[in-house]
Amino acid sequence: MKSFPGDNDNKWTVLKSEYLFRRPWLTVRREHTRLPNGNECPEYYVLEYPTWMNIIAITKEGRMVMVRQYRHALGVTRYELCAGIMDSTDASPLEAAQRELMEETGYGGGHWQEYAVLAQNPGSMNNLVYSFLATDVEQLSTQHLENTEDISVHLFTPTEVKRMLQEGELIQALHAAPLWKYFCEHPA
Amino acid sequence: MKSFPGDNDNKWTVLKSEYLFRRPWLTVRREHTRLPNGNECPEYYVLEYPTWMNIIAITKEGRMVMVRQYRHALGVTRYELCAGIMDSTDASPLEAAQRELMEETGYGGGHWQEYAVLAQNPGSMNNLVYSFLATDVEQLSTQHLENTEDISVHLFTPTEVKRMLQEGELIQALHAAPLWKYFCEHPA
Repeated sequence: MKSFPGDNDNKWTVLKSEYLFRRPWLTVRREHTRLPNGNECPEYYVLEYPTWMNIIAITKEGRMVMVRQYRHALGVTRYELCAGIMDSTDASPLEAAQRELMEETGYGGGHWQEYAVLAQNPGSMNNLVYSFLATDVEQLSTQHLENTEDISVHLFTPTEVKRMLQEGELIQALHAAPLWKYFCEHPA
Repeated sequence: MKSFPGDNDNKWTVLKSEYLFRRPWLTVRREHTRLPNGNECPEYYVLEYPTWMNIIAITKEGRMVMVRQYRHALGVTRYELCAGIMDSTDASPLEAAQRELMEETGYGGGHWQEYAVLAQNPGSMNNLVYSFLATDVEQLSTQHLENTEDISVHLFTPTEVKRMLQEGELIQALHAAPLWKYFCEHPA
């Protein structure tokens, strides 16, 4: 994470810290904290996650590679960017993103750039989410999904994806942020 | 949440559901689920949250009202939109957002519109985040903060806020999404 002036202002003191829960998909830390003003927060929860990535992938023909899958917390099936979690074997967020795009969609190649680095929620979740912009990708393989993945791949024009954002069909905030940035920087 | 064609495709079956943890700031549900392809996920975690709101508030003079506070999970102090949580006494997300802007910043009045409805994370978190665009707001009061809030208020030009987004200083994804939408729709 890039640092900025004042990043270290007003830090809280951690008086006690303990793990409540450590599972592959849920790690919860509870902390007793003291604010600079002296007030204390006896139970502050931090959720720990690995680094995440998502990819705005655009084919040589100018189509955006989107995935569609069921999302259980909201109980709906929707379009999203291809996204994933950095593994311990990935050398970098870029390599992880390239692996994930290939596994989930079969698309690869092209030109890649880091496009945004955001926090899922800097108050309660400790991970960063890297967004990449990949242009001129092409279908190089077929999907290789895990047992609990049920993902279909769809190509859309940028105009169609922008409409999905505007109408609220594309609802994942972590994907809406880099996509709105893209449409801001690439007006139709 | 608006519904879209196919929202109910590929739903999972919940074989067992139990609350692991129910505290004011952390509610965790563990579910044993079965996918349409027959595969099962014996421990899927859903985090339950109330509705959240954030506000792009712009004064009559054209300045954006931003807040600055320490965010403990990442351990940094950064600029953000004014944001909050809908209380049981709030009649609507709009009313909650107007209350929150007044409490955190002292600004109010003006013209309000719902600007985006996004999911914090539709896979693992069950809440929606409403973004509002409030124009022509003015300072009507002073801050009324809770004990564990340590928030300062700052006015910036839209150009300054866009630069913070571009440079990665404004890191909260839930705020970056509506702000990039705003800059997309209001090019400088």
